[in-house]
Amino acid sequence: METTLNNNDNVINGRLIYTNHVAQTLDDITARLKPVSVHVLVDANTASFVLPRLQAESQTIGNAHIMETGGAGDLHKNLDTLAGIWQKLGDDGATRRSLLINIGGGVITDMGAFAAATFKRGIRFINVPTTLLGAVDASVGGKSGINFNSLKNEVGVFADAETVIISTTFFNTLNSQELLSGYAEMIKHAMLTSDEMTWRLLRYDVTAFDPDTLLKLLQESVEVKCRYVNADPTDKGLRQALNFGHTFGHAFEELAMERDSPLSHGYAVAFGMVAALILSHMKEGFPSDSLHRYSDYVRDNYGAFPISCKDYDRLLDFMAHDKKNSNPEGYTFTLLKAFGDPVIGAEATTGDIKAALDIYCDMIN
Amino acid sequence: METTLNNNDNVINGRLIYTNHVAQTLDDITARLKPVSVHVLVDANTASFVLPRLQAESQTIGNAHIMETGGAGDLHKNLDTLAGIWQKLGDDGATRRSLLINIGGGVITDMGAFAAATFKRGIRFINVPTTLLGAVDASVGGKSGINFNSLKNEVGVFADAETVIISTTFFNTLNSQELLSGYAEMIKHAMLTSDEMTWRLLRYDVTAFDPDTLLKLLQESVEVKCRYVNADPTDKGLRQALNFGHTFGHAFEELAMERDSPLSHGYAVAFGMVAALILSHMKEGFPSDSLHRYSDYVRDNYGAFPISCKDYDRLLDFMAHDKKNSNPEGYTFTLLKAFGDPVIGAEATTGDIKAALDIYCDMIN
Repeated sequence: METTLNNNDNVINGRLIYTNHVAQTLDDITARLKPVSVHVLVDANTASFVLPRLQAESQTIGNAHIMETGGAGDLHKNLDTLAGIWQKLGDDGATRRSLLINIGGGVITDMGAFAAATFKRGIRFINVPTTLLGAVDASVGGKSGINFNSLKNEVGVFADAETVIISTTFFNTLNSQELLSGYAEMIKHAMLTSDEMTWRLLRYDVTAFDPDTLLKLLQESVEVKCRYVNADPTDKGLRQALNFGHTFGHAFEELAMERDSPLSHGYAVAFGMVAALILSHMKEGFPSDSLHRYSDYVRDNYGAFPISCKDYDRLLDFMAHDKKNSNPEGYTFTLLKAFGDPVIGAEATTGDIKAALDIYCDMIN
Repeated sequence: METTLNNNDNVINGRLIYTNHVAQTLDDITARLKPVSVHVLVDANTASFVLPRLQAESQTIGNAHIMETGGAGDLHKNLDTLAGIWQKLGDDGATRRSLLINIGGGVITDMGAFAAATFKRGIRFINVPTTLLGAVDASVGGKSGINFNSLKNEVGVFADAETVIISTTFFNTLNSQELLSGYAEMIKHAMLTSDEMTWRLLRYDVTAFDPDTLLKLLQESVEVKCRYVNADPTDKGLRQALNFGHTFGHAFEELAMERDSPLSHGYAVAFGMVAALILSHMKEGFPSDSLHRYSDYVRDNYGAFPISCKDYDRLLDFMAHDKKNSNPEGYTFTLLKAFGDPVIGAEATTGDIKAALDIYCDMIN
């Protein structure tokens, strides 16, 4: 199946606001929504680094009920934390006309969105992603949920935020690795769009970002995701383009977990996209020079995720599990004919994948 | 606010199937939906009285994964039971293309619908209500959820079943009280519709029902609810007509709970509608003869729920809590000018309510 998405499609998404004036924006939106009460969800990180500033600058946040989850990170994205949020919303008197504002990374926005979507059968919520990965990856698409039974996002719903406020003002609290992790998803969006956008992003040094420049790049990137999500809101076809690099990436992530040296999601995707471009070159004629230029960029900025042929079978296991529900016979990938020309549902054999991993080892190790 | 609903509006609701051939219908639907697996949720009652028959008659149910909740009743409509359903779905290999069939009363269909709507961000589900109350009350409207933090339906979503199969074939397992409890909601729908429909229902003896006749009456009744729900899917205005009798009814229900002699929901509504018709007579000129004819019917079939003037303040407390989120100044009711002519958002004072309760005591005690 080839994509038929027209990159010039008009993207109408009034839910997204790009701004570096977050406090004022929150006050403006709240004045319009007139909630009977405002509740704010933060994690330990945003409680320390983001909340005090917003409490001082925004009347809405200053007067809100504050809920802090036990800690930050994926481990806390579970049923216990969710039940605690429901409980606190009830205890703080939230009604169907209240508003929940989720301030944090993907864990907080995913879990807070799910809590809001299910409390009294749904209250309004605003997401304020405070990480680059959260802003680019978790801010559109309406995916919400928690991990359950040791499975990521096993329980959740599709629920749209009233507004997502996308800003770079909080990113000065992130280290280089966190910035690069989010940036990998931006590069992925560029690769789905054009040569020009891809090379422009690879030339930009996100670790020395200027807030307003990065906000513009972020908007351009999120709009790519919006086009795919709008074309396929419930994730049944075209949207799979956004999985580019993720089949390999998730397998690398799980292998790293088994080695007890976890790889952050964005880093896994950065390495996964090298492997996916190799497979794209083999199966779809993706240009070799572009592949090498990207793999040089990854090595220079993300370092290496070394594997050997002894890891291939384990990686294939992970990939088979990753996509087990879609194609029982073979392996399915999103590949690229060229930057801006994705192929969804490309088939590959075990032999293809091992050959691609051989080349990956030569290039990255 | 008066209703503007036209009773002749075309009701399009392909999700509802009225049939007394449930097994065949389930097989037909499943053949069309082609789920990768079928999972069936039952409670202790339906596991004993309904499931064996469907397992024998329906290939779909015969081959399905069966989940049984710990027991029947509202006490089990909680987060623990819900988590158990999610867990079992996962353990039984359910995927996003699986199908959940909920077979039971309102507890099972509400909770099963919520489990399906949230498992892997939503799988398809079919509801098969097995009680008259469930068929008439819980089968349309898309309300799903669980009790939480001692509050009814505190957590849930609006989620539409793929299909609701409405049938009277299972009602022979219900006793007279269970039949009359559901019938009160059917009478309410009739009162919102016309004199003719109301008197026709009051003449019918539901405790000696014929399955096909009752199925026709049930269809007529559910279609009344559909018209209101279709006109107001998220319960913000017109749908409040369906609360007729429920402000008094819920207060009676809670008072009975405090007296340690619980009143079933339908009985509370039957008594609540007597009080609501009295208030309708006082405030909206509802005809006195119709009021007396209905209260005679209630006394003959439902008996009495005796109260005294010492209970008034407690009842007012319950009513204030019941509607506290909508009107902080006064009490709001759905009343009737006549059968078929509801008034939504009618205001009443404490004095009005006490006067209505005085008359209620004279009529019912």
